[in-house]
Amino acid sequence: MININLIEGEDYMSEYQTILDQSIEHARPHLKSGKTADYIPELAKVDPELLGVTVVELGGREISSGNADSYFTLQSIEKVFALIFALDLVGEDTLFELVGMEPSGAPFSELATLGEFSEKPSNPLINAGAIAVSSLLTTLISFDDFLDKVRSLCKNPKISCNDSVYASEFAHSERNHSLAWELKRMKLLVGDLDESLRFYTRSCAINVCARDLAVFASTLASGGIDCDTGERVISKSAVRIAKSLMFTCGLYDGSGEFAVRVGLPAKSGVGGGILAVVNHRLGIGAFGPSLDRNGNSIGSILILEYLSEKFGWHIFSH
Amino acid sequence: MININLIEGEDYMSEYQTILDQSIEHARPHLKSGKTADYIPELAKVDPELLGVTVVELGGREISSGNADSYFTLQSIEKVFALIFALDLVGEDTLFELVGMEPSGAPFSELATLGEFSEKPSNPLINAGAIAVSSLLTTLISFDDFLDKVRSLCKNPKISCNDSVYASEFAHSERNHSLAWELKRMKLLVGDLDESLRFYTRSCAINVCARDLAVFASTLASGGIDCDTGERVISKSAVRIAKSLMFTCGLYDGSGEFAVRVGLPAKSGVGGGILAVVNHRLGIGAFGPSLDRNGNSIGSILILEYLSEKFGWHIFSH
Amino acid sequence: MININLIEGEDYMSEYQTILDQSIEHARPHLKSGKTADYIPELAKVDPELLGVTVVELGGREISSGNADSYFTLQSIEKVFALIFALDLVGEDTLFELVGMEPSGAPFSELATLGEFSEKPSNPLINAGAIAVSSLLTTLISFDDFLDKVRSLCKNPKISCNDSVYASEFAHSERNHSLAWELKRMKLLVGDLDESLRFYTRSCAINVCARDLAVFASTLASGGIDCDTGERVISKSAVRIAKSLMFTCGLYDGSGEFAVRVGLPAKSGVGGGILAVVNHRLGIGAFGPSLDRNGNSIGSILILEYLSEKFGWHIFSH
Amino acid sequence: MININLIEGEDYMSEYQTILDQSIEHARPHLKSGKTADYIPELAKVDPELLGVTVVELGGREISSGNADSYFTLQSIEKVFALIFALDLVGEDTLFELVGMEPSGAPFSELATLGEFSEKPSNPLINAGAIAVSSLLTTLISFDDFLDKVRSLCKNPKISCNDSVYASEFAHSERNHSLAWELKRMKLLVGDLDESLRFYTRSCAINVCARDLAVFASTLASGGIDCDTGERVISKSAVRIAKSLMFTCGLYDGSGEFAVRVGLPAKSGVGGGILAVVNHRLGIGAFGPSLDRNGNSIGSILILEYLSEKFGWHIFSH
Repeated sequence: MININLIEGEDYMSEYQTILDQSIEHARPHLKSGKTADYIPELAKVDPELLGVTVVELGGREISSGNADSYFTLQSIEKVFALIFALDLVGEDTLFELVGMEPSGAPFSELATLGEFSEKPSNPLINAGAIAVSSLLTTLISFDDFLDKVRSLCKNPKISCNDSVYASEFAHSERNHSLAWELKRMKLLVGDLDESLRFYTRSCAINVCARDLAVFASTLASGGIDCDTGERVISKSAVRIAKSLMFTCGLYDGSGEFAVRVGLPAKSGVGGGILAVVNHRLGIGAFGPSLDRNGNSIGSILILEYLSEKFGWHIFSH
Repeated sequence: MININLIEGEDYMSEYQTILDQSIEHARPHLKSGKTADYIPELAKVDPELLGVTVVELGGREISSGNADSYFTLQSIEKVFALIFALDLVGEDTLFELVGMEPSGAPFSELATLGEFSEKPSNPLINAGAIAVSSLLTTLISFDDFLDKVRSLCKNPKISCNDSVYASEFAHSERNHSLAWELKRMKLLVGDLDESLRFYTRSCAINVCARDLAVFASTLASGGIDCDTGERVISKSAVRIAKSLMFTCGLYDGSGEFAVRVGLPAKSGVGGGILAVVNHRLGIGAFGPSLDRNGNSIGSILILEYLSEKFGWHIFSH
Repeated sequence: MININLIEGEDYMSEYQTILDQSIEHARPHLKSGKTADYIPELAKVDPELLGVTVVELGGREISSGNADSYFTLQSIEKVFALIFALDLVGEDTLFELVGMEPSGAPFSELATLGEFSEKPSNPLINAGAIAVSSLLTTLISFDDFLDKVRSLCKNPKISCNDSVYASEFAHSERNHSLAWELKRMKLLVGDLDESLRFYTRSCAINVCARDLAVFASTLASGGIDCDTGERVISKSAVRIAKSLMFTCGLYDGSGEFAVRVGLPAKSGVGGGILAVVNHRLGIGAFGPSLDRNGNSIGSILILEYLSEKFGWHIFSH
Repeated sequence: MININLIEGEDYMSEYQTILDQSIEHARPHLKSGKTADYIPELAKVDPELLGVTVVELGGREISSGNADSYFTLQSIEKVFALIFALDLVGEDTLFELVGMEPSGAPFSELATLGEFSEKPSNPLINAGAIAVSSLLTTLISFDDFLDKVRSLCKNPKISCNDSVYASEFAHSERNHSLAWELKRMKLLVGDLDESLRFYTRSCAINVCARDLAVFASTLASGGIDCDTGERVISKSAVRIAKSLMFTCGLYDGSGEFAVRVGLPAKSGVGGGILAVVNHRLGIGAFGPSLDRNGNSIGSILILEYLSEKFGWHIFSH
C-alpha cells in the first residue's frame, strides 16, 4: 500500500498518474469476458475496449487516465442524482414512504421484477424504486431543471441528454412500463405515468464522462460541500443516505462482493460508468462499457479494486 | 454532536457516562412494542425490560450503562466469530466456495429458507450460510476450541455455553436440520450433519454480556490488533471481510435501514445482543431482549442510533 | 344418489325442481362467510344474497331455481369463450405458442402476477394468459363480433356489455396494464396494447344470467353440437381443450379441491357466476356474488356440490 | 377412431393386439430425446430402449405388447397406493389436514422444494405430500403390510422391494430429509422421521411390471371393485379422490398438457412407469424408462396418447 499523502507536489502527481495508468492496464485484459449492454441497440454500439478513470481530490487536484473524456450515458447512475434531488426537495420521511432502504438480493436478470413489491420497491437504487422517485420529481421540477442540476454538480455545462439513446430505450421500455403500472396500482406513482417514464428514461440517457462523475463524487466525499466554493450544495443527510445506500445496494447483485473487495460507496450503470466515493478524501469516476453478468462494468470494477488496494481506500481496510 | 475527544480525563468519563445513561433512557419507552424470541422456550423466559450497553475504546477506556453484565446468548452474533475463525483457518477463497457475499433480501420470517440456495447460501451471516461455516469448522477445531477462542477475544474466561438454551434450541431445530440436509445435497456441508448442527446450535447458546461484545468489537475496530497487548489476534483480511458483511447484512431484513440510520458494521442476535464497530475508535456491545418484527433488539438499535447521532459515529455522517 | 333418469315426464321435472330448490337452500346460510368483489366499485354494489341456478339438458329440457334471470358480468368466465373463439380461429398450435396448459398453483392474491411468466403465462384461464388470448383476438375479430358470438352460444340476443362495469374496471386495471406490458416485452402480445386491454376488460363486463351460462355449457357437454339444431357450432378439439383446462384450472386456487369434491369442468368469475359441464348430459349455470378467499362464488360452489352429489355427476364418482 | 366394442371375440383381441403393437412402434423413435433418471445410480443403469404396455378391461380381458413383464420400480406411482391406503385407514378429513388438493405448478426441478409449504404440501402426489402420507402410514401399518396390499391390488404375489434401489435412493435422499424436517417443523410429520423416510423410500423401490399397474388401474376404473370377485377392495371415495388428483396433478409439471392431450387420470414415476385409468372401462400400465424434462416417461406418454386418440378414451373427447 502506497501512502501517497507523504509524497509532495509534482512527484505526487506523477506517482499518482503512474498508478492510474497501471489500473487501466490491469483492467484491460479482462474486458473480453463481458459485453456491452445489448438489450438497447444504441448501447450495444459502443466500443467495448474503452476504459477511463478520473480522481478528484477534495483539495481540487484532479488526475485522469485513459478515455476519461469519452461520453457515455448515466443509466442507473442517474438514481443517485434523483435520490439526492428528491431528498433535498421533500425530505427523507416523504421519500421513504415510496421506497424502502433494503438491499433487494435480486439477481440482475430480475433487477426490476414486480417480485420486489411486497409493499414498496426495496430501495431507490433499483429500477422500480427509481421510477417511483422519478415520478415524484416530475411533480416538483422539470427535466430541464434536473439536467441543469446534474450539470451544476458535475461542473460541466456541456452535459446533455443523448436523444437517440433516450429514444432507443423508451422504445424498449416494456419492463419499465410494467413496473410503473404496478407502482400506480400501489399508489406509489405520484405523477403521470407516461411523463414519469419519459423523465426517468431521459435521465438515464444523460451523457457524461468519467471526469464528470469524479467531480460529483468529490462533493459526496466532502459531505455535500463544493470544495471550490466552500458552499453546501447538497444537504448533509441526503449525502449520508446516498452513500449508505450506494454501499449496500449500488452494484445490483454484485453489491455485496464489491463492498467486501473494494469497500467504497459506489453506483454502476449499464452504460459502463461507476461513480465511487473515498469518504473525506476524493471522488472517482470510472468507465468501461464491457459488462459482467451482473450488469456492472468489468473495467471500472477492476480499476477501482486496483486503486482501492494500492491506496488503502477500503472503508474497513484497517 | 458532541466532540467528546476534546474533553479530558475524569470529565470525559463523566460526560460519556451521562450520554450512555441517556441512551438507555431514550430506548426504554419503546421496549413494549416488541417481544422476546418466543419460538424457543428458554429465550422467551428472559426479562424483556433488560437494557445494557458497554463501549470499549481502542485506548482501553471502558464505560457501561444499564445491565451491561447481564448474560444472554450470542445466537446469530456467533456468525461473526465463526466467520472470522473460518477465514483465519482456511482463507477467503475456500470459504467463499461454500457461501456468497450478497445481502439476501430475505424477510425475517424466511431468514433461513431454502429459497436462498440458488447455488449456495447468500452470505455467511444467515442461518444457512452459518451452518455451512460451522460444518467446515467441525473439521478443523473442536467446540471447546471455539469456546476458548470466543473467551479469548472477549477477554472473559467465564464465558460458557448455556446448556439449557442449547438443549431447548436443538430440540426446536427442525428448520436448521432441513437447511443442513439441503446443504448436504449441494455438497456444501463438509462435516458430519449432526455434529455440524450441534456445533452451530452450541455456538449460538454461548452466554456473553454486553461488555464481552464490546471488547471483541474493539479488536474489530482496531483491524484485528489486541489493544492491550499490541498483538495481532485476527488477520487483517478476516476483519475487513467481517466488517464489510456486517455492514451490508448484519441485521437481517433491517440491515439496509440500520446502515442508513446508524451507519456502523454490526451484528444482531435474537438473544437481544448487538455488536457494533466504530472503525479505528471503539467497540460497542448492546443488549435488550425485546425484538422487533425483523428479529433485531429494539433497545440495542435505539441505544446505537442515539449514540451514533450524538457522537457522529455514522461511517458516512460527514 | 337419485337416478333421475328413471323418473319420467312431469314427475321428472317436479322432482328435479325440488332438488334445485334444495340446492339453493343448502347454499344460502353460507353466503355471509364471504363478500362481493370489492376491488371494483361497480361489483361491490351487487346484492350478496342473490342465488340462482339453471340446468339445460342435452335433450333441451331446462329447469331453474332462484335468481336465474339476474344479470351479472362474466368476468373470468369470458376466458372460456375467448379460448374457444381463438382455438377455432387459429388452431391449437398457434394458440399454445402464446400460453401454456399447466395449472399455475398461484394463490388468488397473486392470480395475475408476473411471477407466472417464466416463459409464457401458465394457461389461458389466468389473467395474463387471457390478456394474451384477447390480444390475439383483436387481430382477428371486433369486440362486436365477440359479443355476437357470446349471444349466439348463449342463445340470448339481449346479452350486452355493462358499460359502467367496463368503465369501472378499466379505471382500476393497473395490474392488467402491468401484465400486458410484460407480455409485450416477451413478444406474447400480438395486438395493440390499449386495444387488447379494452377488448379484454369489455369481454369481462358482458352481462349474462345463470340461464345463459347453462345454455352455453350444454353445448360444451355435447362436444360442440347445438342440441336444438344438431349443428356443430364449436370444433370438437376446442371443446375438448376447454373442458380439460376448466377441470384442471377453472377455479383459481380452488381448482384442485373443486375437482376432488364436485368433479366437473367449470369456470368461475368474480362476478359470482360459475359455468359447469356434466359431459354428454347437461350444462349448468350458477350465480351467487358472495365470494370465498379464492375469489370463487360460495353459493355457486355449494349448489354445484349439492347437485353433483345428489345426481352422481362427479366425473370420477363411480 | 376405432369402435373396438363392435368387434367380437378373437377378432377383437387380434385387432386390439395390433393397435397396442402400433402404439409401441409409434413411441419407439422418440426415446432418444430423453434419458433415464440419472440422479440415482441404480435407476441410471436401466436399458432406455425398454417399452411395454398392458391393458386390463373390467370384464377381465387382458392384452399386452412389448416389455410388459419387465420389472421397474414404482417411484412416484407409490403415491397413489399410499394415498388410497391412508384414505381408507383414516378418512379424507384427517388426511387433508396434512396435505392439500391443489396442483402445485412446480417445475420438475423443484418438484419437492420447501417453497410448496405455505401451510402444507400442495397435494399428496408431490414428494413433500407423499412423505407426510407415508409418515401417517407408519403409525398405522408396517411396510410389509403396505407391500402385501400392493401385491393384493396388483394380484401378483411376486412383487417385492428392490433392495439395491432402496439403498441407492436412501443414500441420495438429502432433499427428502430436508422436506421431512420441514414437515416436522410444521407438525405435519406424525411418525418418526427416519422411519417415515425409510417407509417412503422403500415404497418407491417396489418392483412392478406394466401388467401389475394395469391390474390395479382396472380396479380404479371400476370404482374400487375387484372385477374378478365382485368384491369392493377400495372405498368409493378413496378411488374418486385418487382419480381426481391423478387427473389434475399426476404428471408433475406435465399434468396440464397430459390432461389436454390424453385426458385420463394417470400417475407417472421416474422409474418409467405410468398408470392410467379409462373410467368404467379399463386400466392401463405403460413402461419406458427414458424420461422427458418433466421427469415423465416419454414412451409411456406416447403410447397412452396414441391409444387414447385411437380408441377415443379422452374423458372429454366427445
